[in-house]
Amino acid sequence: MTAAAFSPALTATAEPPVMAARAWIAGRSFPPETPLINLSQAAPVDPPPRPLREAIAEAALNDPQAHLYGPVLGLPALREAVAERWSAHYRAAIAPEAVAITSGCNQAFCAAVATLAGPGDEVILPSPWYFNHRMWLDMAGVVTRPLPCDEAGLPSPERAAALIGPRTRAVVLVTPNNPTGAEYTAGLLAAFRDLCGERGLALVLDETYRDFHSGDGPPHDLFAAPGWGDTVIQLYSFSKVYRLTGHRVGAMLASPARLAQAEKFLDTTTICPNQLGQIAALAGIRRMGDWVAGERLEILRRRDALRDGFAGELGAGPGGWRLLSSGAYFAHLAHPFDAPSDVVAKALADRANLLVLPGTMFNPMRAEGGDGTAEATLRLAFANADAAGLAEVLRRLEAFRL
Amino acid sequence: MTAAAFSPALTATAEPPVMAARAWIAGRSFPPETPLINLSQAAPVDPPPRPLREAIAEAALNDPQAHLYGPVLGLPALREAVAERWSAHYRAAIAPEAVAITSGCNQAFCAAVATLAGPGDEVILPSPWYFNHRMWLDMAGVVTRPLPCDEAGLPSPERAAALIGPRTRAVVLVTPNNPTGAEYTAGLLAAFRDLCGERGLALVLDETYRDFHSGDGPPHDLFAAPGWGDTVIQLYSFSKVYRLTGHRVGAMLASPARLAQAEKFLDTTTICPNQLGQIAALAGIRRMGDWVAGERLEILRRRDALRDGFAGELGAGPGGWRLLSSGAYFAHLAHPFDAPSDVVAKALADRANLLVLPGTMFNPMRAEGGDGTAEATLRLAFANADAAGLAEVLRRLEAFRL
Repeated sequence: MTAAAFSPALTATAEPPVMAARAWIAGRSFPPETPLINLSQAAPVDPPPRPLREAIAEAALNDPQAHLYGPVLGLPALREAVAERWSAHYRAAIAPEAVAITSGCNQAFCAAVATLAGPGDEVILPSPWYFNHRMWLDMAGVVTRPLPCDEAGLPSPERAAALIGPRTRAVVLVTPNNPTGAEYTAGLLAAFRDLCGERGLALVLDETYRDFHSGDGPPHDLFAAPGWGDTVIQLYSFSKVYRLTGHRVGAMLASPARLAQAEKFLDTTTICPNQLGQIAALAGIRRMGDWVAGERLEILRRRDALRDGFAGELGAGPGGWRLLSSGAYFAHLAHPFDAPSDVVAKALADRANLLVLPGTMFNPMRAEGGDGTAEATLRLAFANADAAGLAEVLRRLEAFRL
Repeated sequence: MTAAAFSPALTATAEPPVMAARAWIAGRSFPPETPLINLSQAAPVDPPPRPLREAIAEAALNDPQAHLYGPVLGLPALREAVAERWSAHYRAAIAPEAVAITSGCNQAFCAAVATLAGPGDEVILPSPWYFNHRMWLDMAGVVTRPLPCDEAGLPSPERAAALIGPRTRAVVLVTPNNPTGAEYTAGLLAAFRDLCGERGLALVLDETYRDFHSGDGPPHDLFAAPGWGDTVIQLYSFSKVYRLTGHRVGAMLASPARLAQAEKFLDTTTICPNQLGQIAALAGIRRMGDWVAGERLEILRRRDALRDGFAGELGAGPGGWRLLSSGAYFAHLAHPFDAPSDVVAKALADRANLLVLPGTMFNPMRAEGGDGTAEATLRLAFANADAAGLAEVLRRLEAFRL
């Protein structure tokens, strides 16, 4: 008997870094005076507010439909609610037919790429990138063309243009960014949209952290342009804003023609998004507007506290650490040591009881043609810590010696 | 501006047939004397029993963890419960580390294939097949090698052996089968396992309908063989047995080494299965054993009633219709008309208010090298109809003229 082999594309794909980082602290106990501070994952640690929990419980008990298959592209009421809110927020006319609900935002990315690119095609991915984006491209046989961002975390349309070849199918942007926290201006996004439109590419725009954007108005006007769906695919997550990470609900906005193709992918992989998560997301949109506004202000306060601790972005911080960029859930830090970031991050976990993710998880390494960002930086999911927690993080960074 | 193009692999993939069939009845109203009988989808029409609904509501209200990310491979308690029940049912020692929980059984199939095959590799798929299996292979660029079953719905290991080439990676079997209802014997499954083991292939065994198998003992002894995980990957769904279709919970049993690869796929596509669905599945395993036993007997009674109406399998039925095979949720029918099955199925929907799926959705057509099964057959999800409903189905079939 011969054991069945493994697909090389999957074995060559990197391990999920959040799990790898969790292994650093597995089985350890932490003293009460220096408890673990886990800023590794962008995830709420509290359950959703009571009205959402009650909406789920009520549906579970009394709504038979909540337990049965629903439409592949999501509950019509949720698609309509998203279209209505988005139309107001982005000052555009977005139809429910341009909205699909997905089993989390990762699946929205996978579905979007499936409609665009196959093995041997190329996608331009600014680095640092969101690691699951890179993993999906690797699994799908799609070639990642890294687009190194500047120190402030911003990608350049001109540098992107130079990467476009005959097999290029899309540019992926994440704003506010994971892992850097950088917010892209409306002008930068329009420039990328123009580039993609001129070259027949898609602009895949992941706005998972949109609800924590520091700006009060719409972050861009891409949806206001006629024919936006020819170029723009927006991805969104209900997980962070409503604390629904365990429910797996995201969204994808695109042309109805593209959603008709995505529908095949979504049907084949999960048939439909789970119903209770969609019901919670709908209750969130309808009923939690004020609460979300308060959550956003609290996270912006945390970001400001962090910036104060570092004397601003790109300024010097305690112990030689530097804050490169920050926003929404994340801060992008440069460490002061002559060692690669994965060594620094593991030592921080081991000796400072502080769990953050190294730049090696978000970038190509120098040996792979990277520009050194991988080795020099760390991602800190600061939104998971309150003001006192952030002060403690700064103290630990300052005191830490490699 | 040039609109972004579409991936040819996805545009070439067939539409999900359940949706296509739904379009046949969209917008129609049905008279009270001949209401719509919808036997198109294998899906419970009632919600899960009250203890499961209460378990979900209780967790939604009072268990904060139920709203947060969980482990990629599923809740440890559910993996342990599956391992324990499976060990008893299959008379084998199955470890929790060999069990992964997925966002439905479709995702389990996608993950299994992702660990096995890439573009240009081949997978042997008995026809008729489950359409989402074929769709995923098409999207992934994996070549489907159809293995035509005999009239009773059984695949032949000898015919499969003749299809194996250097790029073949797996054989997929579904038992009890979708769409034919056929139950494969333990001997047939062992023969396929031996073939796969000898040739270094995986045997992907989808037992979604296992809980409605007509046999009382274990349906096979594959898990009892040492090193089963070198060859066998089992897929399972909690959707049918506990009426949890809207919750998206399935499972994949394989070697821990294969699950470590599947974990990358699952993390990247959905991060984790939704928590409430897993909590319901766990409550189902722990508390609903007697109820499940009763459900199974009811479905077996419905199958027997159907067989009686057709004077048994492979026997003549009303109006020249024949029952080819039946089991679990499905019956496989041969129609008496000189017309392809999609024409017959649409006419049944239009004029007999009976929605079933044509063989063209489950097989290669004659023009594609098919053996005629596509054109000659229909799938009827009989488990969705009670005894009175099945009698009415038989009356409508008998009276129907094309």
